[in-house]
Amino acid sequence: MIKGNVLYGQSGGPTAVINSSALGLFLECFKHEEIEEIYACHYGIEGLLKEDLIDIRKISKYKLMQLKDKAGAYFGSCRYQIINEKDYDKILEIFKKYNIRYFFYNGGNDSMDTCNKISKYMEKVGYECYVIGIPKTIDNDLMETDHTPGFGSALKYVVTSELELIDDINSYEKGRVTIIEVMGRNAGWLTAASVYAQNKTTMPHLIYVPELPFDMDSFLNKVKEIYQKEKKVVVAVSEGIKDKDGKLISEGNLDAFGHSQLGGVASYLCTVVEEKLNIKTRYIEISLLQRCAAHLQSKVDVKEAMDFGKYALKFALEGKTDQMVGIKVLSNRPYRFKYIPIPLEKVANGVKEVDKKYLNEENGSIKPLYLTYINKFMD
Amino acid sequence: MIKGNVLYGQSGGPTAVINSSALGLFLECFKHEEIEEIYACHYGIEGLLKEDLIDIRKISKYKLMQLKDKAGAYFGSCRYQIINEKDYDKILEIFKKYNIRYFFYNGGNDSMDTCNKISKYMEKVGYECYVIGIPKTIDNDLMETDHTPGFGSALKYVVTSELELIDDINSYEKGRVTIIEVMGRNAGWLTAASVYAQNKTTMPHLIYVPELPFDMDSFLNKVKEIYQKEKKVVVAVSEGIKDKDGKLISEGNLDAFGHSQLGGVASYLCTVVEEKLNIKTRYIEISLLQRCAAHLQSKVDVKEAMDFGKYALKFALEGKTDQMVGIKVLSNRPYRFKYIPIPLEKVANGVKEVDKKYLNEENGSIKPLYLTYINKFMD
Repeated sequence: MIKGNVLYGQSGGPTAVINSSALGLFLECFKHEEIEEIYACHYGIEGLLKEDLIDIRKISKYKLMQLKDKAGAYFGSCRYQIINEKDYDKILEIFKKYNIRYFFYNGGNDSMDTCNKISKYMEKVGYECYVIGIPKTIDNDLMETDHTPGFGSALKYVVTSELELIDDINSYEKGRVTIIEVMGRNAGWLTAASVYAQNKTTMPHLIYVPELPFDMDSFLNKVKEIYQKEKKVVVAVSEGIKDKDGKLISEGNLDAFGHSQLGGVASYLCTVVEEKLNIKTRYIEISLLQRCAAHLQSKVDVKEAMDFGKYALKFALEGKTDQMVGIKVLSNRPYRFKYIPIPLEKVANGVKEVDKKYLNEENGSIKPLYLTYINKFMD
Repeated sequence: MIKGNVLYGQSGGPTAVINSSALGLFLECFKHEEIEEIYACHYGIEGLLKEDLIDIRKISKYKLMQLKDKAGAYFGSCRYQIINEKDYDKILEIFKKYNIRYFFYNGGNDSMDTCNKISKYMEKVGYECYVIGIPKTIDNDLMETDHTPGFGSALKYVVTSELELIDDINSYEKGRVTIIEVMGRNAGWLTAASVYAQNKTTMPHLIYVPELPFDMDSFLNKVKEIYQKEKKVVVAVSEGIKDKDGKLISEGNLDAFGHSQLGGVASYLCTVVEEKLNIKTRYIEISLLQRCAAHLQSKVDVKEAMDFGKYALKFALEGKTDQMVGIKVLSNRPYRFKYIPIPLEKVANGVKEVDKKYLNEENGSIKPLYLTYINKFMD
């Protein structure tokens, strides 16, 4: 393979293990003599365009190893979308200047699109550079791969928090309607994980994901019925639930000044329950905590996140480019899998929704079968 | 001492270690032959009045030991206030029926008041019964004791979450105004713990506790100034912050139907910042999670919670009654302390605010001296 330098960048919302992928990549780089210098973009593509690069070989091994436990995107992230030709020219100029022959971009759907575009551009201008995407997302909504690093830790955090909340709620004989809001704009993988707590405790009584249309009347009827029987109700909802016409439920939510608020679907549903059913409510927004809770990382997730970084380099050194590292699960119990390259254009900007086999469309619940998919992350 | 039976009850909001106090008490009971049966109220005083008792000797030792890791109030809690004479008569009747000679009530300020009233009543009617309160609260607002079980674990959770949130927020070069809401209606001990994160990272930039009057103009000016310099601002606020006239700031908060909402001060401050400064915001309510996060218990807190339960029995067996177990700290570094009995009337219904020596009244900040008070709980 061509000798040269590596460039790594982080992009989009952080996860509890994105830095583990960086570590996995760097440790693999150290093993190959084709790899000379190793750089990281400071704040993703935005930093790259400003030639703001971090020299990884100057960071002590001791400090690098701490990446595994570090929340956030350690090297800085961005939400920048490449829109003009000048950006590509600038990137090429910097790639040439720093002799970047291996480029790895660590992010979600949009970032895989960016990665795809850079790869295509380098091919077009005939600059030899191997470009591999390393996925990360807590939403687990990337196409073609069984799951993505970040999802396992987020779901472990969400489920652990739910189980503890349920213990708290069960401290009282009678309670309120508690609505827990979980992240997930377009896919309900993370919210669906609430079926783990449901399986252990019967709560949350209701779980709502964006894949199934949300009907307010049906919701209110179910809440009323459960409350009459059990004197407390726990509901888990995805922030992105929509009605049958595809309109976000959270759009009904207004702030103190009467403006429509983004997010806050749980808070909105609480006001509707209080108004229509006259039952006390409480909303819990797990918010950013679910994507940064490094103290509760899933061991399998950390291991895999590192492997995704490692395989990114392996695939590049095999001459692959314009690919994303993916995982193909051969069996969930026992857990067997292999890492695979996936063409970036198959991933870029697509959204993988929760598989229909896990959804009970008649009553809107999550099937226990989903447990076999998520159990591996709970350790 | 008089031979007889023990009754234990949980009351008020749970903490991550209230069940450790129960365990500490029960394990000590097993060592003393004066103690015959051991009961717990199912849902506190409310359960007691319904004669709904749990026989602790029927629970396996294996299951009892799990109490240490269990969130919520395992035996059930309540928010019942004794208001009429009939309740006392009923309690006396049940105490006699079950030969309750040792009564332990595990709760916050209101529960210590209940405990005090029951103790006084038993003395008045001449029924020999030793009544000891076991404190618990995440707010740390009980009089006369250096701190209370539950506070250490809650602050460890709040600080850990804040540090992870800060890592997340620092993933981007530019950010929003993030306002983190921490529990504490009347006392800011828990919110003040944010100084731990501030000391490590310079964030949260601003910390607001109920002990110091909140001035909206000063807040907006500070936010504006920090945002201009750093392009992101992190604020920690107590849910109970008040203006100079003692009016809750959160009262300005209206829901989607225009009703005033309890809580939600962070959400309200966000709308004010967006409206007045036109800067993007995000609120994080740590909510119930901070009082039930058993997965992140403070080791010192668990140990002490167990000891509070143990000393409750010890004090009772020494003939003490109408007392609460307290802790007197002799030195913070090295950490040395002793358990002391405190007359219940000194505790009942009082509120211990954050000590003035920890507050910087001129600029409203928390002094680093506070770290010596909280450091012991971070492990």
